[in-house]
Parts: sequence; structure tokens; C-alpha cells
Amino acid sequence: MAPKCKLTYFAIMGLGEPIRYLLSYGKIEFEDNRIEFEKWPPLKASMPFGQMPLLEIDGKKMIQSTAICRYLGKKLGLAGENEWESAQIDMAVDTITDLRLKLSDYYWEPDEAIKQKKKETVFNETLPFYLERLNVLVKENGGYLAAGKLSWGDIFFAALCDYMNCAAKFDITKDYPNLASLKKKISELPAIKDWISRRPVTEL
Amino acid sequence: MAPKCKLTYFAIMGLGEPIRYLLSYGKIEFEDNRIEFEKWPPLKASMPFGQMPLLEIDGKKMIQSTAICRYLGKKLGLAGENEWESAQIDMAVDTITDLRLKLSDYYWEPDEAIKQKKKETVFNETLPFYLERLNVLVKENGGYLAAGKLSWGDIFFAALCDYMNCAAKFDITKDYPNLASLKKKISELPAIKDWISRRPVTEL
Repeated sequence: MAPKCKLTYFAIMGLGEPIRYLLSYGKIEFEDNRIEFEKWPPLKASMPFGQMPLLEIDGKKMIQSTAICRYLGKKLGLAGENEWESAQIDMAVDTITDLRLKLSDYYWEPDEAIKQKKKETVFNETLPFYLERLNVLVKENGGYLAAGKLSWGDIFFAALCDYMNCAAKFDITKDYPNLASLKKKISELPAIKDWISRRPVTEL
Repeated sequence: MAPKCKLTYFAIMGLGEPIRYLLSYGKIEFEDNRIEFEKWPPLKASMPFGQMPLLEIDGKKMIQSTAICRYLGKKLGLAGENEWESAQIDMAVDTITDLRLKLSDYYWEPDEAIKQKKKETVFNETLPFYLERLNVLVKENGGYLAAGKLSWGDIFFAALCDYMNCAAKFDITKDYPNLASLKKKISELPAIKDWISRRPVTEL
């Protein structure tokens, strides 16, 4: 019997989608509990560290999307075969998080003048800087982010792409063929393809 | 023979200090290569993903301070005994990183008016929110962040405290006895105490 599992997150892809991808990949049935933005403020205080995503799995409550993905990655045999392989995945994932944070910082900036200034830096410097190097990394690793094989890091990256594309308002992998090909490869894994075909359609 | 090891980072505690603590705890001799801020811009392009800290260990180059600390934690037997213990450490560490990022975002804000605004949120909301909950977490875990025993997460936290205290301009653990006691306990571990006694004195 599959573990009883429930993911609570906003009704967007965002930081929930890598978890949804991994659960789908592992054929772990889950309740996809989506919270509308306006319903979040009164709920926040009841959540550990006031945070989502919250994953309830194996009778436990988990927060922090990256920690959750690493835990699922281990369960699914996608976390490397030794300490060095695991470290390579962790380094790639934290680098993608750095990129995502910089992009989010621009995207959610409420002051329009500041947002325009951030936009220049993000599009002219940050995105090309990270994407060029990630593209090389994937080439060096035979089409994956780490250790020459599929890991939870690849699934994490592919799942965050749609969110990052929405924030950037274009496909951030378009000039980086190794990244585009990695994203495509993940989205064509049968269990992920199935999830994509039935997930709620959201912008972010 | 201890592995040949070299840490390259700014001449501050910052994100390098958790690595220095862990290397010291493990009695792994390392070259503490400190780069002055003004020497960094020309070096940046030569670094993987333009980043420091860079740890050269076991003939490998590692970036991303958290990934490095987790790798060292595993080597030193401080990364949990099973997937759930490891996940608890990861969740605590990522939560501390969230706090650190919010504090840094305020500290490094160049615009004085914006900085004042951020200051209010950070001191009246962010710090108490996180510290209260971390304080409870440490109580629930018998004086540690996770799994009722010493982990790399505790060392990570204690090493980042001085940096966060400097950014906040006060001891952030002062009203949180479990956190204060955890920091003290780590700083009194003989190998860490020895490191603290001989490290270069820096503000940040």
C-alpha cells in the first residue's frame, strides 16, 4: 500500500511542483491540497515555521521544499550512490535555488521603479551567468546535472522551470540546448508526463 | 594522513565559518585562504559559478556552503542515522538559511531609506518569528536542532550566529535560552574552542 501522503501548498506550481513531480515519479499517491492566496494568512500561524509547502508523509510533517525533495530523492533511489555523488546533486540544486531566488526577488518586487532596475540586472547578468554555466555542467554530466545520471536534482530543475519561465516571461532554456533537452527528457518520463497531463493548469 | 584541504573565502566569518567549524571539529587540517573584498572582482570569473566559499578537498572542488557542510557532516558521522534524521537536520538548516537571508537582505541594502523599512520588518517580525520557533525546536530535540543529538546542523547554526549577531548588532540568541545554550555548547567543544581561540578576529 502506498504511504498516506498529503501536500499542502499554494494553488500554483512554485516550490510545490518539484515535490509533486517526485511523488508522481515515485508513483506515491498524494492528496494535492491547494490553498488559495487569500486563504493563507489565517492558516499561516498553524503551520510549522509558518511555511508551505508542507508534506505529510510516513506519519511525519515536513517543511522546506529542498529538504523534502532530497528526502523523496533518497526514497526513490535518486540521491546518488555515494557521498560525492550526493554532494554534486546538492551543489547543483543550491545553485538553481540561487538563480530562482534572484528571479523571484525581481518578480515579486512591489515597487515598479525598483523592479525595473532589478529587471536589467536579472536579465542581462544573472540569467545568462547561471544558465551558461548550468548548460556546461549538464554537458559535462552526460545530459544530467550530476554524476552522469538521473537524480532528484534533474526533476527539481525541470519542475521549477515552468515557474521560472513564468517569472521571466520567456523560456529561460531557449538558448541553452543542454538545459532544454534535460527539461524535455524529464517531462517525457512516463509518470511525469502523466502528472503534467492531469495537473491543474496554473500560470505560476 | 589528513586530506589536503583548502578553503577559499572572503576574510570574514560569513558563510565560510560553518565550514571552518566543521573542518576544525573533524581535525581536518586546512589552508584558510582568505580573499580581501577588493581582490575578489578579478577572481570571480575563475571560480565555479563565480562563487565562494570554494572548498578543495579529496581532490575535488566544492561550492555552495550548505552542500559542503552536509558533505563534511556525512564524513564526520554528524548527518543522522537514517533518512528521517537527515531530513530533520536539512529542514532546520534550510530554516536557518531563510532567517539568515532575510537578515542579510536588510544588512546589505545600499539604499538607506529602504534599509530602515526592512529593519522594522526584520527586527519586529522576522527575527522573533524564527527565533521563537527555533528555540522550541531545540527544546523538543533535547538541546539540539534535530534528532536529539549533535549534528552538522548545530555546528552550522553556532558558526553562523556570530555573523548574524554582527548583522543584527546584538546577540540574537539573548532572549532564547535554548538557542543560547546550544551555541555555547558548540563553542565549548574542544576542537571548536581551539579554532575560535586561534582564528583571525573579524567583525562579520
